[in-house]
Amino acid sequence: MSEPTVIEPGFFEVIGTQRAMRRLKTDPVPESYIKKILWAATRAPSGGNRQGWRWLVVTDPAAKKQIQGWYNELWSKAIASGYGAGAGLPEEERLSNERVMKSATYLAEHMHEAPVLIFACTLTGNGDITAGSSIYPAVQNLMLAARALGLGTALTTVHRGHQDDIRKLLGIPESVETAALIPVGWPKGKFGTGFRKPVQDVTYWEHWGEKRP
Amino acid sequence: MSEPTVIEPGFFEVIGTQRAMRRLKTDPVPESYIKKILWAATRAPSGGNRQGWRWLVVTDPAAKKQIQGWYNELWSKAIASGYGAGAGLPEEERLSNERVMKSATYLAEHMHEAPVLIFACTLTGNGDITAGSSIYPAVQNLMLAARALGLGTALTTVHRGHQDDIRKLLGIPESVETAALIPVGWPKGKFGTGFRKPVQDVTYWEHWGEKRP
Repeated sequence: MSEPTVIEPGFFEVIGTQRAMRRLKTDPVPESYIKKILWAATRAPSGGNRQGWRWLVVTDPAAKKQIQGWYNELWSKAIASGYGAGAGLPEEERLSNERVMKSATYLAEHMHEAPVLIFACTLTGNGDITAGSSIYPAVQNLMLAARALGLGTALTTVHRGHQDDIRKLLGIPESVETAALIPVGWPKGKFGTGFRKPVQDVTYWEHWGEKRP
Repeated sequence: MSEPTVIEPGFFEVIGTQRAMRRLKTDPVPESYIKKILWAATRAPSGGNRQGWRWLVVTDPAAKKQIQGWYNELWSKAIASGYGAGAGLPEEERLSNERVMKSATYLAEHMHEAPVLIFACTLTGNGDITAGSSIYPAVQNLMLAARALGLGTALTTVHRGHQDDIRKLLGIPESVETAALIPVGWPKGKFGTGFRKPVQDVTYWEHWGEKRP
């Protein structure tokens, strides 16, 4: 595989600055970059190492536009029904939530402008939360690798409301789940640290509720 | 936070050599290392950036032994009922499966010897596969960061068969899901590339089934 020529940032720098990048440029992404982030995805662990994932890369403008239409319809409905309303959140979280919702709406309206859409598919079907343990680690590897190469991504699942239509459009078998839709492109904004709660606020030691500084 | 003093491997080296390490030494892990990998976990994305995760770190020998007992009971039952039987798999996958099953059985018998067990908990409850999209990316960050520091981990979910007992033991509320149990320790073996299918075998372009070299 031809290696993208980039100055590779350090591991913890990548970890600390990977965040959803929902405003993407229309500029194309070289195929070697797409293959590199997919390589990273496929290095992830999966239950019993079964690797029941398939990655479907979509760059066709007509297909992207169709997918964006469905996505935007679902996103608009979700917002209208109160999804993401941040009333009652602490101030810092409320402001973060406002930013997230605004950029998520931008993404819904501009999804088709992303040069690449990637569907993370699983052959092992739907199930409870643990079904996700064999696909989302790979999705995270993909997004981290994109960050390392300077590419923006976001993990979205809203499209699943039109999953059957998407299956028909792209020939995906009914038994296959599309666990995530990941737009990929060069970010308009800069990478940086998103709002995150301090580790000590979300970590307990030995027993639920027991914090340490 | 005090930074562990390690030579940090490159980002793609970490991605390419993180695999389940199920044979762990009993040597203790400094708290600064645990905090560092939890920091990495908490940098991950989550739906709406809600960060509904809690990390429960268990080092108490009696608690670890109790958890191992439950885990081993569930693992033995799973094996007895045919879980992980690799008959019919292609040769390379069959051999990989044998290795995975053998080391997973080792882990079930020795889980309590790991110096640290971490429960990845979610406040947002169970649900379908997408419920996992807000916790397993963080779990993957944790495991990658552990790899970067030389620590071994494995993503396990078998404990969930005794989740209510574990909730009682550790004071975890009923509304909280334990999405993963991750043993952490210094590995007995070496990091390296696990068996993974070639990227081009699991990647489709524009339409399901369409491969590219």
